[in-house]
Amino acid sequence: MTDAHQVVAVLGRGVVAPTDPVAGADDLGLTRGDGCFDATLVEWDGEGWLVHDLDEHLDRLRRSADALGIDGPDDDDWIGLVGDALQEWTGGDEIGLKLLLTRGDEHRAGSPLAVVTLTEVDETTRRQRGGITVVTLSRGMPSDAFADAPWLLGGVKTIAYAVNVAAKREASRRGADDVIFTSSDGFVLEGPTSAVLWLRDGVLTTTPTGATGILASISRAKVFAQATAAAGWRCEERLGAVDELLAAEGVWLVSSVRGIAPVTAVDGRAVAQDERATAILRELNGF
Amino acid sequence: MTDAHQVVAVLGRGVVAPTDPVAGADDLGLTRGDGCFDATLVEWDGEGWLVHDLDEHLDRLRRSADALGIDGPDDDDWIGLVGDALQEWTGGDEIGLKLLLTRGDEHRAGSPLAVVTLTEVDETTRRQRGGITVVTLSRGMPSDAFADAPWLLGGVKTIAYAVNVAAKREASRRGADDVIFTSSDGFVLEGPTSAVLWLRDGVLTTTPTGATGILASISRAKVFAQATAAAGWRCEERLGAVDELLAAEGVWLVSSVRGIAPVTAVDGRAVAQDERATAILRELNGF
Repeated sequence: MTDAHQVVAVLGRGVVAPTDPVAGADDLGLTRGDGCFDATLVEWDGEGWLVHDLDEHLDRLRRSADALGIDGPDDDDWIGLVGDALQEWTGGDEIGLKLLLTRGDEHRAGSPLAVVTLTEVDETTRRQRGGITVVTLSRGMPSDAFADAPWLLGGVKTIAYAVNVAAKREASRRGADDVIFTSSDGFVLEGPTSAVLWLRDGVLTTTPTGATGILASISRAKVFAQATAAAGWRCEERLGAVDELLAAEGVWLVSSVRGIAPVTAVDGRAVAQDERATAILRELNGF
Repeated sequence: MTDAHQVVAVLGRGVVAPTDPVAGADDLGLTRGDGCFDATLVEWDGEGWLVHDLDEHLDRLRRSADALGIDGPDDDDWIGLVGDALQEWTGGDEIGLKLLLTRGDEHRAGSPLAVVTLTEVDETTRRQRGGITVVTLSRGMPSDAFADAPWLLGGVKTIAYAVNVAAKREASRRGADDVIFTSSDGFVLEGPTSAVLWLRDGVLTTTPTGATGILASISRAKVFAQATAAAGWRCEERLGAVDELLAAEGVWLVSSVRGIAPVTAVDGRAVAQDERATAILRELNGF
């Protein structure tokens, strides 16, 4: 592995070497995955660094922290920390920005841990913007599992992503790039780090948040806010069976760093491609 | 909060100050909960430190690591690290030992992170050995959700425990000490950090591992291996509805640090107590 270029900044410490430890052995983020994160793309726009949708990501991070009952830093502290990190950046012009917040130490008084990490966007991510193959994997839960069960942390972007990572390993094992999780009652949910969109007969569809437990995708929200005006598509949030993907005119996984990734195959079966629609989605998403 | 006495040792670094950071911002354990842990009780037996069931915990940690595809340290390395940490211990005679293993850095070459933490057993844990109230909370999944779905990491003691911690917060909110997770089809599963046992008519019952996704409890295994010879109980692994707990002669949450905790109430309804059975279970468990 070639080491990726990184810059790390910690609230209260400032910029540290990327190999410096930041979390103690008693930190609940490390010991229990008890924390949350958010991530977005930073691009050099010729004159300065453009952080895509920073306000929306800070809002979502705050909602995640509130759901966990973690009293995190103010937006201004995060923004300052991102600025400090970007000042030290000497890598390329496309950066994945991660904001990470943990509950802090379990057994001693202290504060939450807040860390900003900049990582150069890797070749795999760039390549996958051109098209990805996916497998469907059951998330083991019915599509209404998260209704009235806040302790299941539906819609909360926790750092307890071991199943998401394991699902991606299973995809690799099956020769695919990514995963679409399905509910035990057979509906499309989301990717491990993305939302799913599909287009048919002028209707752009995605899975609803709420009882499904899926994350409120910021990319999806941007696209849905503009799609009717820009492309004449009707936008729908409803449950859809996996077969709908195979019958669609286009299927995409959308996420904040990779952007709009057209799905070329689901479980080894080809999915229709709509390059015009992909171009529109990129335009609406901002990249 | 009074700071608990702790000793921390890191493979390759040795004993560090308990407040020293150990995990970097790129460590997948911190960023994704992509790692595993195990925990047990260490007691001063008058002449030296007794680590309860260390072999069994090292075996289970190895199974967790294997399921995640993490190539962790050898048992000898762990044992050496535990010994190094115990040499520095100046606290009381009851210690919670945690072994924590992460996949290591995501974006640079390196090794898994292996950390041993000793923490003084707190008053709450000691008190809960005398009796606990629990609430039942749905885990959102049917009792066979983990069959043929290894990416869901059933039975793997990952550090991605955010839901387990959130469930305990929900219990506190409801005025209870702990949680018994239930399946969406109404069966008893396990506690967030314990297994459930119940006794009726000479039959000691617990939930099966495997398709339920619950952890293979070492305390449970110890009890089941000896219960028939020692107490004449028949031991059964089968699914049971929550109502069975209310009809039982005794219900216990068993775990490696807290030990045998008799349940006094489930969802506000009193549960029968069997002090003789509790004493037998403690004897079989070793404390």
